Amino acid sequence: MIPRALLDHINANYRESLGDLLDFLRIPGVGADPAHASDVRKSAAWLLGYLTRIGLDARLYETPGFPVIFAQYGKTPEAPTLLLYAHYDVAPPGPPEEWTVSPFIPVVRGGLIFARGAVDDRGQLFSVLQAIACTISVDGGLPVNVKLLLEGEEEIGSPGLGAFIREHKGLLCADIVVVVDILKYRSDMPAAYYGSKGLLSVTVDVSGPSVSLHSGIYGGDIVNPADVLVRILGSLKNADGRILVPGFYDRVREVTPEERSDFAALPFDRDGIKAMLGVEPVAQEEGYTPLECVMARPTLSVNGLWGGALPGAPLMIIPASAGALVSFRLVPDQRPDEIYRLLKAHVDSLIPPGIGVNLHIDSCHEPFVTSRDSIAVVIVSRALEAAFGQRPVLVRSGGTSGIVPMLKKAVGVQDIVITGWGDPGDGEHSSDEHFSIENYRRGIVATAAIMYELAIIKGETPAR
Amino acid sequence: MIPRALLDHINANYRESLGDLLDFLRIPGVGADPAHASDVRKSAAWLLGYLTRIGLDARLYETPGFPVIFAQYGKTPEAPTLLLYAHYDVAPPGPPEEWTVSPFIPVVRGGLIFARGAVDDRGQLFSVLQAIACTISVDGGLPVNVKLLLEGEEEIGSPGLGAFIREHKGLLCADIVVVVDILKYRSDMPAAYYGSKGLLSVTVDVSGPSVSLHSGIYGGDIVNPADVLVRILGSLKNADGRILVPGFYDRVREVTPEERSDFAALPFDRDGIKAMLGVEPVAQEEGYTPLECVMARPTLSVNGLWGGALPGAPLMIIPASAGALVSFRLVPDQRPDEIYRLLKAHVDSLIPPGIGVNLHIDSCHEPFVTSRDSIAVVIVSRALEAAFGQRPVLVRSGGTSGIVPMLKKAVGVQDIVITGWGDPGDGEHSSDEHFSIENYRRGIVATAAIMYELAIIKGETPAR
Repeated sequence: MIPRALLDHINANYRESLGDLLDFLRIPGVGADPAHASDVRKSAAWLLGYLTRIGLDARLYETPGFPVIFAQYGKTPEAPTLLLYAHYDVAPPGPPEEWTVSPFIPVVRGGLIFARGAVDDRGQLFSVLQAIACTISVDGGLPVNVKLLLEGEEEIGSPGLGAFIREHKGLLCADIVVVVDILKYRSDMPAAYYGSKGLLSVTVDVSGPSVSLHSGIYGGDIVNPADVLVRILGSLKNADGRILVPGFYDRVREVTPEERSDFAALPFDRDGIKAMLGVEPVAQEEGYTPLECVMARPTLSVNGLWGGALPGAPLMIIPASAGALVSFRLVPDQRPDEIYRLLKAHVDSLIPPGIGVNLHIDSCHEPFVTSRDSIAVVIVSRALEAAFGQRPVLVRSGGTSGIVPMLKKAVGVQDIVITGWGDPGDGEHSSDEHFSIENYRRGIVATAAIMYELAIIKGETPAR
Repeated sequence: MIPRALLDHINANYRESLGDLLDFLRIPGVGADPAHASDVRKSAAWLLGYLTRIGLDARLYETPGFPVIFAQYGKTPEAPTLLLYAHYDVAPPGPPEEWTVSPFIPVVRGGLIFARGAVDDRGQLFSVLQAIACTISVDGGLPVNVKLLLEGEEEIGSPGLGAFIREHKGLLCADIVVVVDILKYRSDMPAAYYGSKGLLSVTVDVSGPSVSLHSGIYGGDIVNPADVLVRILGSLKNADGRILVPGFYDRVREVTPEERSDFAALPFDRDGIKAMLGVEPVAQEEGYTPLECVMARPTLSVNGLWGGALPGAPLMIIPASAGALVSFRLVPDQRPDEIYRLLKAHVDSLIPPGIGVNLHIDSCHEPFVTSRDSIAVVIVSRALEAAFGQRPVLVRSGGTSGIVPMLKKAVGVQDIVITGWGDPGDGEHSSDEHFSIENYRRGIVATAAIMYELAIIKGETPAR
């Protein structure tokens, strides 16, 4: 339970901190754009200063890419430790003409803050910082030890995070981890995510003759790399959404009857999705509901295709090479390295003479799922209920968390949950990204509540 | 039989005409490059002047694109008429760094003329003009009526030729047609091509959601256009090269036992192809030899693929759309319009809800095959034997002729053959294109011989 005085202080002061958040949002920390590399570093420097100003012991760690910031407060050995993760880099803004505001000139309008990064993840990160600042200010300290792991490469696939975590295991020990980098299930339904899918994304490069050839003169006696590519890709999944790589399902943990019944009880806004995307959502694997497919069944997508003639410029050739990006979203207990081996064996069996196929792993992350009874899930659920006035839904994410499996593996923390306070319609990774000031306030309350709930639950729990 | 005096005149004078050919090759008539549009017109004007200068009645006909030039000599109703086709436009030169000379600054070196268009088709066209000029000069006229159809859009798919032919049927009537726009079978084997494949090339556009989507969040409940595309393309052909579109083979005329035995007797330079392309040639349809597949079996190639993530920039999305260019090379008696209907029915049967598939025909040409005993084949064979000192091989082209089926259909000429005097290694459509001066000379002799052989065969043949 969050103390009454703290809640009053938060409600009385959260608006004052908005000026600082807007300053933060003015720095275009787009890691994917080399022109903004110095702005990502500027964002890190600004954040480091801010963390120090609110009383945290913060330090910047260089990586081969953009720095990681680690900050902490409280080092009482007998107190429980909460590790919070968020990221300070932002996604590219995309085409400026799709925005009604300028992505890096924040605008407050109708209770919403518009800017790239407003919700993902700077606004959510800032709620965490305000919770810490307010608590220190009212209570003179925090009820638990708090560690902050703030990344600057999330939007480019966290290339440097694994090495940082492995090198600083000791620093990262914690009782529970809360990753603040996701949205509510629906704007009126806060959510605790107790699982996320793994990811194996692979570039498939098929090569054949040394140069592209006339498809008439050579179509009868030279194997076409593009033909082989579509034969390989077409063999990976059938029309019922069943993935055909032999052995692919061997380790898939079935959706439990309890989960099936919980997922079935969740609202599923078929019409809203159709209105937004122009197509009706349909379960992509036979025998499962759309939500089960999204949250708990492995999927396979062809993400990109290239080679030979370009659209609008017909050229009747046998291209010298063709390629594709394919990705598998995996569920427990699938292992990306094993799936890669199965994929490779399957692909190798389809390569005709005269053709080379090279597979390159672009991303590789483990799936994760935590018990819904775990301390992290229980604490975050209580905190969200305190902040939003209603019981959150317990769901699994169809997306992939890079950080969670890294922490599990390197640091050994098992008690991890993913949450956040933005709304699904907030334009994350899209145009006119925004964050409601009310969600910002509730995020501060939720973070404060997480700290107090951890203190309480650990107090109730016998010493370990 | 070509008169001795004419042969002596050709041998004594062909070198003098090379200066004119080099002037012609200096004009960069690349129809595919808008920057060279005026040069294509300049080429046409230059050619029109040249034709007039050597005594032909030549006229330029505008089309929506580049002009057609039609020229003739002799209008004696009782004499047979020969229609010769060639084209004056050239293929784009491609990357300059792949050339050891400048494509439009012709160079003569070691008996070879280097320039874009040297062999395809300006050099071959020029042999035809010299044969006419020499014959007029020695004999005071031609032994047959001669018509020249000279196109300026061959390298961009002849978009305006069909309409021109339909509108000028009367002009194009002839006893036989010789298309001068192909190479020998091997440098030491002249060839008369009595057939060429048809072509149906189709752009397949698959569209799904209104925007590209996160493959984790939507991979379970939104159909992926790229997945559908590879499923469609993967269903068109099996690993044995058999095309799986229902009904595709219904009208395929089988290779005759006589052709099979003739093709089997042709040399097939497996090692040369492997050395040149880095891959071994292999029959692409089970049950046929490589040469049978190239010359007389229908084939299907995926010529290009696009959509979603680009090479080297992994992006785990469900692309909003994906597309491909596929082309069928057809054999008699397949009909491209019918094959299109079969393809469309097959594709339509594979479209899941939420996905739109649009098929667009990019090229559509009928296959053709002439009897090997036809007058055109007999005459051209005799003429090639006279010019090259050896009996030519009778073969079919795996490529597609636009002009032949158009003439057959609109004008009703059945007696058509395709030939040429360049060598397969002359760099047609590639870098350092060249044409041997000796082949140029023999081409002049061959053309003159075609005119005399037609006069002889028609004299021997009873009146029609």
